[in-house]
Amino acid sequence: MTEDDFLEALFKRMPRPPGELVIPPGDDCAGFREAGGSLLLIAADQVVEGRHFLDEGAFASSPQQVGRKLLARNLSDIAAMGGTPLYCLSSVALGSRHDAAWLDRFFDGMLDLARRWDTHLIGGDLARGAGKTVASLTIVGRAVESRVLRRSGAGDGDGFWATGLFGRSFPTGHHLEFEPRLAEARWLSEQGFASAMIDVSDGLLIDAGRLCRASGVSLFLDVGAVPRRGTGTSMEQALSDGEDYELLFSVPKEKERRLGREWPFRDLPLTRIGELRRAPAPGIFDAGGSPLAPAGPPGWDHFSR
Amino acid sequence: MTEDDFLEALFKRMPRPPGELVIPPGDDCAGFREAGGSLLLIAADQVVEGRHFLDEGAFASSPQQVGRKLLARNLSDIAAMGGTPLYCLSSVALGSRHDAAWLDRFFDGMLDLARRWDTHLIGGDLARGAGKTVASLTIVGRAVESRVLRRSGAGDGDGFWATGLFGRSFPTGHHLEFEPRLAEARWLSEQGFASAMIDVSDGLLIDAGRLCRASGVSLFLDVGAVPRRGTGTSMEQALSDGEDYELLFSVPKEKERRLGREWPFRDLPLTRIGELRRAPAPGIFDAGGSPLAPAGPPGWDHFSR
Repeated sequence: MTEDDFLEALFKRMPRPPGELVIPPGDDCAGFREAGGSLLLIAADQVVEGRHFLDEGAFASSPQQVGRKLLARNLSDIAAMGGTPLYCLSSVALGSRHDAAWLDRFFDGMLDLARRWDTHLIGGDLARGAGKTVASLTIVGRAVESRVLRRSGAGDGDGFWATGLFGRSFPTGHHLEFEPRLAEARWLSEQGFASAMIDVSDGLLIDAGRLCRASGVSLFLDVGAVPRRGTGTSMEQALSDGEDYELLFSVPKEKERRLGREWPFRDLPLTRIGELRRAPAPGIFDAGGSPLAPAGPPGWDHFSR
Repeated sequence: MTEDDFLEALFKRMPRPPGELVIPPGDDCAGFREAGGSLLLIAADQVVEGRHFLDEGAFASSPQQVGRKLLARNLSDIAAMGGTPLYCLSSVALGSRHDAAWLDRFFDGMLDLARRWDTHLIGGDLARGAGKTVASLTIVGRAVESRVLRRSGAGDGDGFWATGLFGRSFPTGHHLEFEPRLAEARWLSEQGFASAMIDVSDGLLIDAGRLCRASGVSLFLDVGAVPRRGTGTSMEQALSDGEDYELLFSVPKEKERRLGREWPFRDLPLTRIGELRRAPAPGIFDAGGSPLAPAGPPGWDHFSR
């Protein structure tokens, strides 16, 4: 069973949510209406020692990097909605290899990034006694309801676009150093270019598939156009490795030319990697129409593997 | 180092919080102002296998009980502020002894309690690969700003009151079955009886000490009046065991008689267990004035032990 399957079944068991829950579970963030009319976005994510970070060996990460990564993953979820981060809470269960000094440096890394994005740590819980260290974080942000970017807004004929590069995030250290695409996502939301958006945590094909399933569209992917991280990265790695934390988004045909012209983030590659078509049974195909993946799991999934 | 010490130092390292953060870290929940004027409350807590629950032996708990407990702990934090719960998010890192079937029953227990208190699970994350299972939960609730009950509101001469019974929560199974005191806390808030409030998770002395420190008062505790859970519970256990999840609150002198008369929860003991006095160096004393504990740690603390 994949995490998506489990969560989908789980959320179906709940009673009908209140009307103010504008964005129910199943997007990068849930969103509920504030008393005053804007949307509060909220999401949670975690890192597990030995899975999302290693303590020793060639790919070892410092405690600062682990704390930074945990917050950055969550900021990426706020970005994927076109939101602005406000607050976070973090619970840490320390494993046998880590102590209060490790925890202190872990929060150094987290707070450095928090300051950069004006995000305030407002709560959490600390415990010892875990076998391996597990740290979770909940992020709270805000968005304008009429501009929030969901997975479900893509339309027939929309172009499919990506920021940045893909593949080999773990061996290159990108997963520890990436900058969440908050500024880019907010610009896309404010300028009204994107019709649907998601961030890539589990892999380009998996996350594109999630957007396709939510929007009821199929993706015809221009495989050769997918920008790879460095020359040593294979196409397979670019499509499936995950932890890229880039944005995938759909753009209505009539806005695509203007997007290419007006994109103000000159240092960050922006690439059109395919096209979307309304489909009763969404899937991902190459440009010739051969199936690449179903629209949804399986693939890299922290829960199923 | 205790969790309190660590968190206090941590929160001091952050820049000045935004003005809408009405209740900064250091209370049962943080609280920030919604666009419309009410307060959103938010808190996070976790349970760790082998520490907050056991898988085998005389005190083993079922997965349903573990899921229920995790939510109930968080609901108790919302109760302590006089708030109403709305949403929760839960991240689980499964240890080597637990599988998807365990997780399913874990959420059974959580969702049963969530339905009872009209609280909606709106997000989370699932992972495998932890040595021991760690589950965290973030709760979101709402309160009327003018009625929210903080730790810091107790005044000179206030009476000090407690709901329920204390001690031996773990061996009696109370920690798995307790009902969060949401209804009682909301009544106290709406009726304007309580001037400050906290829930007892780490032990009566520790949590009373936190309220004293936040309010700048000393507690003169009527030790003999503290209601114990069953005849087999010692005074020491009642004061220090923790996981009682009862409310401790201060009541201005002129309201105490009316509180005793009007308390509508006939099945739940309500007891006056002491008196508060303004003090530059808060502490906890017995009725004769001998010191029982400093106002704050040390004592039972999931982080330091």
